[in-house]
Amino acid sequence: MSAEAAGTEYGALSVETLGERLSGIDRLEERVGADPSLWKVREVGDGNLNLVFIVEGPKGTAIVKQALPYVRLVGDSWPLPLYRAFYEYHALIRQAERDPGSVPEIYHFDEAQALIVMEFLSPHVILRRKLILGEQVGGLAERLGLFCARTAFRGSELSMESGRKKADVGLFSGNVEIPAITESLVFTDPYFDAEMNSHTPGLEPIIATLRGDARMKARVQRMLMTFASNTETMLHGDLHSGSIMATETEAKVIDPEFVQYGPMGFDIGMLTANYLMAYFSQPAHRGADLEAYQEWLLEVITGTFAAFKAEFARLWREERTGMLYPAALFEDQGQPSDEARDELLRNIWQDAMAICGIEMHRRCLSLAHNADFEEIEDVAMRASLEVRNLMMGRDLILNAETIADPAALCDMARAYNGKDVL
Amino acid sequence: MSAEAAGTEYGALSVETLGERLSGIDRLEERVGADPSLWKVREVGDGNLNLVFIVEGPKGTAIVKQALPYVRLVGDSWPLPLYRAFYEYHALIRQAERDPGSVPEIYHFDEAQALIVMEFLSPHVILRRKLILGEQVGGLAERLGLFCARTAFRGSELSMESGRKKADVGLFSGNVEIPAITESLVFTDPYFDAEMNSHTPGLEPIIATLRGDARMKARVQRMLMTFASNTETMLHGDLHSGSIMATETEAKVIDPEFVQYGPMGFDIGMLTANYLMAYFSQPAHRGADLEAYQEWLLEVITGTFAAFKAEFARLWREERTGMLYPAALFEDQGQPSDEARDELLRNIWQDAMAICGIEMHRRCLSLAHNADFEEIEDVAMRASLEVRNLMMGRDLILNAETIADPAALCDMARAYNGKDVL
Repeated sequence: MSAEAAGTEYGALSVETLGERLSGIDRLEERVGADPSLWKVREVGDGNLNLVFIVEGPKGTAIVKQALPYVRLVGDSWPLPLYRAFYEYHALIRQAERDPGSVPEIYHFDEAQALIVMEFLSPHVILRRKLILGEQVGGLAERLGLFCARTAFRGSELSMESGRKKADVGLFSGNVEIPAITESLVFTDPYFDAEMNSHTPGLEPIIATLRGDARMKARVQRMLMTFASNTETMLHGDLHSGSIMATETEAKVIDPEFVQYGPMGFDIGMLTANYLMAYFSQPAHRGADLEAYQEWLLEVITGTFAAFKAEFARLWREERTGMLYPAALFEDQGQPSDEARDELLRNIWQDAMAICGIEMHRRCLSLAHNADFEEIEDVAMRASLEVRNLMMGRDLILNAETIADPAALCDMARAYNGKDVL
Repeated sequence: MSAEAAGTEYGALSVETLGERLSGIDRLEERVGADPSLWKVREVGDGNLNLVFIVEGPKGTAIVKQALPYVRLVGDSWPLPLYRAFYEYHALIRQAERDPGSVPEIYHFDEAQALIVMEFLSPHVILRRKLILGEQVGGLAERLGLFCARTAFRGSELSMESGRKKADVGLFSGNVEIPAITESLVFTDPYFDAEMNSHTPGLEPIIATLRGDARMKARVQRMLMTFASNTETMLHGDLHSGSIMATETEAKVIDPEFVQYGPMGFDIGMLTANYLMAYFSQPAHRGADLEAYQEWLLEVITGTFAAFKAEFARLWREERTGMLYPAALFEDQGQPSDEARDELLRNIWQDAMAICGIEMHRRCLSLAHNADFEEIEDVAMRASLEVRNLMMGRDLILNAETIADPAALCDMARAYNGKDVL
């Protein structure tokens, strides 16, 4: 508990109280100015879970993010522990260390108030918004590929000393209720008649097909088991296009409150799904530039995996200091470890493909749909585009092991993009 | 910290001090009598790590097991944390709950003194000893198959509520140095010139073959990654024939201080390796009954897996109350989950085969060899039998995915048993 919070019960901030409550925090005053009466405070939280304030003062601007004790999207009928701010903070400082510059700078953390004061990113906007508007982001693939590779590698026992990694697994194992949302909303709810599900009218036949496919559901549940019990590395845990803020030339990753240890392919798999959902939704958002923009999205996917693979290989060569695949067993005996690395990369790719397919399902079938599809007002068109997405998702889940590479994945997307199933 | 230990620094017990030090512990006095001057105390620890005392009194007998702050096998040059007694205790009470009667009854635990007072098993002897002597144990396969299935299933999110399971993962993630022994001695040391390695003279060519096989070593390291970061269930962690005490008709599992969360196939895979090492060593220990006893050992292997599979299927049907593979996705929609279960059992089997092969290697190549081979005085014979074991281990590691079933595994063992490689 921070000094400020000692003896203070948690209380949700408001535009009116923020100045008084947060005055005296050195690093906030440094950023925005010391006199809270001069702060302009706006609440801008448009996510599903938290309060987010922009605090603008004479010296500059900062973000104040505060957890609410319930799911904002649903209301206080769905309580959610405040401790997620603690885990988000610990995730952010690790991400900043493992991939410098990839996340907002942290100015202050108050555990009791479940709040984080951090860098105001400007002129960044949420990447999902840019993808709906058909805007490109220079260097996006490279930036996210590096982020996924560096956090995957440097958070694992390929790199970390085992005792430290295990202590970290212990620390994050306390983050139970937040990963539980993923466990149910992503892996389970889409495949039965769960209470909070919703879907576009017209999807009923395809939903029946998906729920009738016991083999596919078994694979989804096997992946849930991997997600819930494979502590390969520290994940972001919710790396979709709403967790990335971007300009024309820069991207930063935000909101890692779903942090947990999990499989290395999870973040990049979920990210890929969100690019593919942007891809499939484009016919409703674009005009003459449709094909060019869709192809750019596929280039982002192949570029992300290319950057991931290249950076993973570099780290494998230069930073393989953990207990796994030690040089003593390979290089020191005059044997290369390239095949061992490629086999592991193959496993990561396969996990990513299955996770990608599952994420493509849940965003159309359970709670928390994404704007790429939701903002399509023509319901029939929305349904027909969602079907392409849902069918490709199923294909990915069933055939994760046989998709050769990102180019093959993009060919699959092009093929589904031309299919009219409904 | 227990009341007895409050304010007391850890001190290793001795035959002379045990009576005075442990008098006043109610549940020990209940078992052996209240007057410590009447206790006969013997130190019988023949394992690698701990002090073990038999305390015999007018009313009965009990075991006192105390951790030493170093590896007994090596000496105080290899320190080892006392906290392993804490984890052993927590493992024992969970095993007793998940498979009643499978482990010794616990009478008392003292965290500060790192000691556990428990049931004296009599006339049980260490199973490895019986296997060297060519003795059969009635019901062995069934007992251990049930133990492996029940602890695997009931310690996983197939059965446990996720919050409880994750809290348990957090608890056991503190057991770092003990699993680290497995990580190095089992998965890494055999495959390079590690300081504490030793091997039977004459094995040099086969060791060169194994160390020259980068593909096999990559698979071993992939399995190490799975072992170290796959928290599917609570493992015993060291389930070899020295961790089982048996009579002619009963077997109990002891010594779970290597407890950790890990892959479901680990315990049964390590157990199988120890049966196979007993099998391959028999030509040096048996006469006319050689073939019959070797066949009995193979029956134990097939019987263990049969019991495991049947019990796992029963628990799947009757106790699948965790978040994984929920009935809502299968039975409640009129679809069986048998294929999903069999696919998972197939994964467990494949992990078990790879782990089996790795355990077969390390027991001949790194520290902590087993008596099955070590007690063969004829060095040339020992080497020739170890080669069979080592070559089959390699085959298992390389081909874990293609071994159809326990019968195929036993056929492999019979084939290697007839091979004279040196």
